[in-house]
Amino acid sequence: MPGEAVQHHYPASYAHCYGCGRLNPDGLHLESRWEGDEVVARFQPRPEHTAMPGFVYGGLIASLVDCHAMAAAAAHVEREAGRVVGEAPAPRFVTAALHVDFLRPTPLGVQLELRARATDAGRRKVAVRVAVLAGGVETARGDVVAAPLPESMGG
Amino acid sequence: MPGEAVQHHYPASYAHCYGCGRLNPDGLHLESRWEGDEVVARFQPRPEHTAMPGFVYGGLIASLVDCHAMAAAAAHVEREAGRVVGEAPAPRFVTAALHVDFLRPTPLGVQLELRARATDAGRRKVAVRVAVLAGGVETARGDVVAAPLPESMGG
Repeated sequence: MPGEAVQHHYPASYAHCYGCGRLNPDGLHLESRWEGDEVVARFQPRPEHTAMPGFVYGGLIASLVDCHAMAAAAAHVEREAGRVVGEAPAPRFVTAALHVDFLRPTPLGVQLELRARATDAGRRKVAVRVAVLAGGVETARGDVVAAPLPESMGG
Repeated sequence: MPGEAVQHHYPASYAHCYGCGRLNPDGLHLESRWEGDEVVARFQPRPEHTAMPGFVYGGLIASLVDCHAMAAAAAHVEREAGRVVGEAPAPRFVTAALHVDFLRPTPLGVQLELRARATDAGRRKVAVRVAVLAGGVETARGDVVAAPLPESMGG
C-alpha cells in the first residue's frame, strides 16, 4: 500500500512551494509516496502546459522532477533512519543541481508518472534519479542533487 | 538598442509554449532579445512562484532558463546566417538536455535577468550557457543543449 505523501509532512513554514506545497493555493500540489523501493508521484498536465501543440512543456517536466526529487531525498533519509513518512516532520531539502535529459517528446493528455530512487547519499547531500513516464514509456530522466535547507532560507 | 523578441517570430504553429509562447494565454510570455553579444530576458516572478517563503521556486528558474536558451539558440543561428531577428521566422529549437546549478537562493520580489550566450554550435545542436541574476547577483547558472524540432513534434 502506498504510504503517506511526503509533502503532507513538510513543516508548515516550508510548505508553500509552487510545485508541491500543500499551502500554495495556486500551485501544482505534487504528492510523492513510497511504492515499494521507489518514490512515486503522478501528475496530469493541464492543457496550458504545452510545449508544441500536443506535447508537454519541458519546464513543467523539470519542475515536477525537481519537487519529486526533493521529496524522494526526504523519504530516503526517513527510511534510512528507520522512520515511516508521517512519523515526524519530513526533512526539507532544496535543489543544488538539476539535470534533465529529454529522451523523447512527452505527449500531453495522459497522466505522467515519476519514479525516483536515491542513487547516492552523503553526509548532507542526496543524489536522486527520476524517471518520467507517459503511458509507461520513459520520456525524460532527471538527475538531481538535494541539499539540506540552507540557513539563509530558514534552515 | 535591443532587437526584437525572438519569440515574436516563432511560426504560429509553434508559439504556444507555456514559458514563452505569445499564443498561450495562460503562459509566462518570456521575451528574449539581443543586447550586444548576449541574448537577454527579464522576468518578474509572481508571488505564487515561491520555493520557501521569500525565495523563487527552482522550477520557475529552470523553466525560464529552458525557454530563454531555446530563443538564444535561434538568435545565434540567425546571426550566424547574417540575419537579424524578425527578418524571417525564427528557427524553433527544443531542449535535449537542461542542467541548472542553483548557486544561491533567488530572492522573490525582484525582477530576474537572464543573460545567454551560445557556447558551442554543431551542425544541428547548439549549447547555451544562461546566467540568472537577481539584483545583479548570479543566483543560478544553466547549461542547455538545444536541438532542432524533431519530426515527431512537427519539425
